[in-house]
Amino acid sequence: MIPIQEAKRLIHENYTSTKVTQLPINKANGFVLAESVFSPIDTPPFDQSAMDGYAFSFDEWDGKSELLLSGEVQAGNYLAENLKPKEAVRIFTGAAMPAGTDSVVIQENVIKNGKYVSIKDDKLIKGSNVRLQGSQTKKGEITLAEGHYLSPAAISFLAGLGVDSLKVYSNPAISIIVTGKELIIPGEAMSNGKIYESNSFGLTAALEQLDIVPVSVEVVDDDEQKIMNAINNQLSADIIMLSGGVSVGDYDFVTSALEKCGVKKVFHKVKQKPGKPFYFGKHQQTLVFGLPGNPAAVLSCFYEYVVEAIGSFTKKAYFKKLMLPLADDFTKKPGLTLFLKGKTRTNEVSILKDQESYKMNSFAMADCIIELEEDKTRFNKGDLVKVQMIV
Amino acid sequence: MIPIQEAKRLIHENYTSTKVTQLPINKANGFVLAESVFSPIDTPPFDQSAMDGYAFSFDEWDGKSELLLSGEVQAGNYLAENLKPKEAVRIFTGAAMPAGTDSVVIQENVIKNGKYVSIKDDKLIKGSNVRLQGSQTKKGEITLAEGHYLSPAAISFLAGLGVDSLKVYSNPAISIIVTGKELIIPGEAMSNGKIYESNSFGLTAALEQLDIVPVSVEVVDDDEQKIMNAINNQLSADIIMLSGGVSVGDYDFVTSALEKCGVKKVFHKVKQKPGKPFYFGKHQQTLVFGLPGNPAAVLSCFYEYVVEAIGSFTKKAYFKKLMLPLADDFTKKPGLTLFLKGKTRTNEVSILKDQESYKMNSFAMADCIIELEEDKTRFNKGDLVKVQMIV
Repeated sequence: MIPIQEAKRLIHENYTSTKVTQLPINKANGFVLAESVFSPIDTPPFDQSAMDGYAFSFDEWDGKSELLLSGEVQAGNYLAENLKPKEAVRIFTGAAMPAGTDSVVIQENVIKNGKYVSIKDDKLIKGSNVRLQGSQTKKGEITLAEGHYLSPAAISFLAGLGVDSLKVYSNPAISIIVTGKELIIPGEAMSNGKIYESNSFGLTAALEQLDIVPVSVEVVDDDEQKIMNAINNQLSADIIMLSGGVSVGDYDFVTSALEKCGVKKVFHKVKQKPGKPFYFGKHQQTLVFGLPGNPAAVLSCFYEYVVEAIGSFTKKAYFKKLMLPLADDFTKKPGLTLFLKGKTRTNEVSILKDQESYKMNSFAMADCIIELEEDKTRFNKGDLVKVQMIV
Repeated sequence: MIPIQEAKRLIHENYTSTKVTQLPINKANGFVLAESVFSPIDTPPFDQSAMDGYAFSFDEWDGKSELLLSGEVQAGNYLAENLKPKEAVRIFTGAAMPAGTDSVVIQENVIKNGKYVSIKDDKLIKGSNVRLQGSQTKKGEITLAEGHYLSPAAISFLAGLGVDSLKVYSNPAISIIVTGKELIIPGEAMSNGKIYESNSFGLTAALEQLDIVPVSVEVVDDDEQKIMNAINNQLSADIIMLSGGVSVGDYDFVTSALEKCGVKKVFHKVKQKPGKPFYFGKHQQTLVFGLPGNPAAVLSCFYEYVVEAIGSFTKKAYFKKLMLPLADDFTKKPGLTLFLKGKTRTNEVSILKDQESYKMNSFAMADCIIELEEDKTRFNKGDLVKVQMIV
């Protein structure tokens, strides 16, 4: 049995190298950039009116004369001819400034007189109400750097530069193998000695929180050969999560099956509760997590260990980690780190009741996992404790 | 022009009633329960061994005699016969306790002698290492109440009760209509007077943050009839978001098109920046948001107004709202509420540069929107300001 810090260090040491994929921009939201993006164009791509009004040449206007209305330009259109001095053109927000103009007077500050407009705007200066070409972004300029998280606003920004695909860090390919002779599928009728299989549901949903769909989900019997077949079929995945069969009972075949499949054990058993029989191994570049069978231990190990390994592929930090004061006193035995289902309130965290690893009712109410150190036995109300949010 | 508080109140007043849908449990993660769930079974469904060991009847054992090993029960199997006094059965974690047994001694605390085992465990009491039937959840008991958020742990919990489908509050059906003659698609070659269309990308990605896929995304020309056709096609949606065409220019056809389609205006124009021309209307049960055309105004109005309307359907609060101290002094004119792109650090928030509504570079860097009140003009470093997280 190793301490959790050692387990985390060993997993960290075995992180696989990241993979990069090119995605169309409409699929790249929520990923992290694996390249720096340089702007292919100036934006705005031309001098652009910022308002509905009239465009003209400021220096060629004497500050009082009427200007001859010589045309109109709507956003999306373009006037090819040069405007003559003392002429103005009707212009709308977003439209390209015609050649020969540099300023816009807004429509509210103009008196129209047939084909002429007279400007009534004391505050007008050269360049008023014009967004200059390249004033947001210049062609060739770096826009977002490698490692930038692609939020919806970042996607909108890059689409506006005309970027249509992006190199991002890929999600790892993840396989789930749930083992157990006692498992029946929710919806089926209960029968003697059986329980409903829930770990594939919990793990799939937890991956969904990370926007990952597993490449495979399989439920197999407690049979070494069947477990070996399932493992061999998934060795091309980046991460395999197994649940159940990692203890030392006569019917716990997962660790022996992994060994026979060529998976090298990195550690087995951690000084923690729940999840003492937790196993971690590696096969070439594939990380293999042998999670216990109890649903609470499965999710606890997922959030504490697997999430960080997934983040090493995607370069994302998924769940917030905090230090919060405990709402109540708590006593534990020394020797094991406890991962407890908790509920946060404003600047406080409560330990929920029903913490046994076979009980999921408290986990269903929890918004966080509280970590209580291995050797400490007494925790007082108000003591700061490590909290990992899970929703 | 109305203040933002009035705009929010008016949207709130017009919330449509929620809709409820029945989902298979593997599709229900992240939704909110629209029913209270009662357990269909006791869990554990039977008295269950918590360890690998030997099951026997505590009261019929004299505390010293060897017990005759009369069989074995693996998890998932079931022994039908009653165990006789002074007999024990080999049992594994998760297996059903045979009739006539009530306690388990763990395998480490037993000496095996052929067909007999002798127990060496001073601390053993009646019921040791047994999880009693119904000790997590009793049949008919309420498990999760209406309004409960379905986290992965909640999904795992309910699957373990055999629940295979759930009534949840549905996502609203949302249509996006982007208007503008000047728009070309990212990846196409730039041409005179055009800009790249980015609002459909930004809005689709922002909906994806809420786990919602829009039912329709359409880009239409600045043409009243075409806009009317697009609106008429989407009036069965719960929410329509349009972008562009809500100002009062000669080519701003969105508000007139909406009126001609029978959409009743609730308000038009809000004392805010960006997003002054923001429009909100209703057609029967359909909420209609007329967002401005500038990308930053679009996303700002989405996060400030539309997200909350979506939450009225799903019963979810999507983004964290905080009060944080400003990192720097800031001065503004009175009369408009400012929504500024911001970046949080530990207990502090900075206002990013480049706040103009046509600029998206700052939004791409932002993790929050800072709200500065309409009438206040001077904000000092350290002043607490309203912050809405957006990633």
